[in-house]
Amino acid sequence: MNSQTAYFPPFTVDFDLQAGIMLNPDRSKSTRASTMIPYYRDRAAIEALAADGDPVHYEVFEKNIPTEEGHIMICISKLLPGKIGDEFFMTKGHYHQRIATAETYLCLSGEGFMLMKTPEGECRAESFRPGRMVYVPPYWAHRSINTGKTPLITFCNYPAHAALNYGDILTEGFPKLIVDSAQGPALVERGS
Amino acid sequence: MNSQTAYFPPFTVDFDLQAGIMLNPDRSKSTRASTMIPYYRDRAAIEALAADGDPVHYEVFEKNIPTEEGHIMICISKLLPGKIGDEFFMTKGHYHQRIATAETYLCLSGEGFMLMKTPEGECRAESFRPGRMVYVPPYWAHRSINTGKTPLITFCNYPAHAALNYGDILTEGFPKLIVDSAQGPALVERGS
Repeated sequence: MNSQTAYFPPFTVDFDLQAGIMLNPDRSKSTRASTMIPYYRDRAAIEALAADGDPVHYEVFEKNIPTEEGHIMICISKLLPGKIGDEFFMTKGHYHQRIATAETYLCLSGEGFMLMKTPEGECRAESFRPGRMVYVPPYWAHRSINTGKTPLITFCNYPAHAALNYGDILTEGFPKLIVDSAQGPALVERGS
Repeated sequence: MNSQTAYFPPFTVDFDLQAGIMLNPDRSKSTRASTMIPYYRDRAAIEALAADGDPVHYEVFEKNIPTEEGHIMICISKLLPGKIGDEFFMTKGHYHQRIATAETYLCLSGEGFMLMKTPEGECRAESFRPGRMVYVPPYWAHRSINTGKTPLITFCNYPAHAALNYGDILTEGFPKLIVDSAQGPALVERGS
């Protein structure tokens, strides 16, 4: 790099690790119930929630990091607790547009699952609890699911040029669901 | 990816976030006092420590993640407390071989500084305390320094193909040091 070009400068981000809060985010994005209507199988239940004040489903807190190769994007994801029919609150899920990029999710608070699938349809779930990190390898679409009573909060790191692809997984759907059952949260086939 | 090629599978890593311990590392690497001899200005003091049992200076705990572009390498770095002359215990410091790659360091325990420099010699220090993340941007060499009484423990994420370059910063040195002073830790010019 020549002397005419400035290097991107170091900076710090402060967290309350117990509460799972980013204390100085540059931006945040809220996803409300109304945008989750295509994702749950109990359409009447999610439509009713959207009509009843359209509350926030999950929030993502980020820093202004260049979306260029070589940078690492970080965020805090906060997924609220609740159920839509027998499904637990979940995120939309996404592939990365640059699909061969990984992501790490360190759970700071709450409990739940990371549901993952490959383009060919292999499906895996890993559990979240405070202090557990889930490694989402390259190629795997991924969705967080909150099976607890409190927000599921994760600290995420991924290549900043990855870019998020919501369209393909919305079309495909995940082959499995996490549903509430008499024995607690259960991983079941979508058609079941 | 065709059906003959297996996708790398998801996995989990468990941490004690309060203690800053990775509970299921695949490997660890210890750096002892004897390999730190070229790094401190009080050569007699570091040689004396190396001769007195050659204790561990810092440890890095890692998972077996492919060192391929698209993957994210994670680690726990544990730097012990102490002083060599008026300098605090520190890591060797490194650039990335793929120099245009960033790294995030989330402090879980302890206190200290991340000292950083560009190839052209600009030098910055950011402080560590529990819950503070330092963003080391692409191009910046970086070294952790423990100014506290307990281990300085950080959770690191970086592009898995970055590869670490220890040679250039050993030759160059950092332009500044963190030294103990009557007013506490102080950032001073190397020649002072």
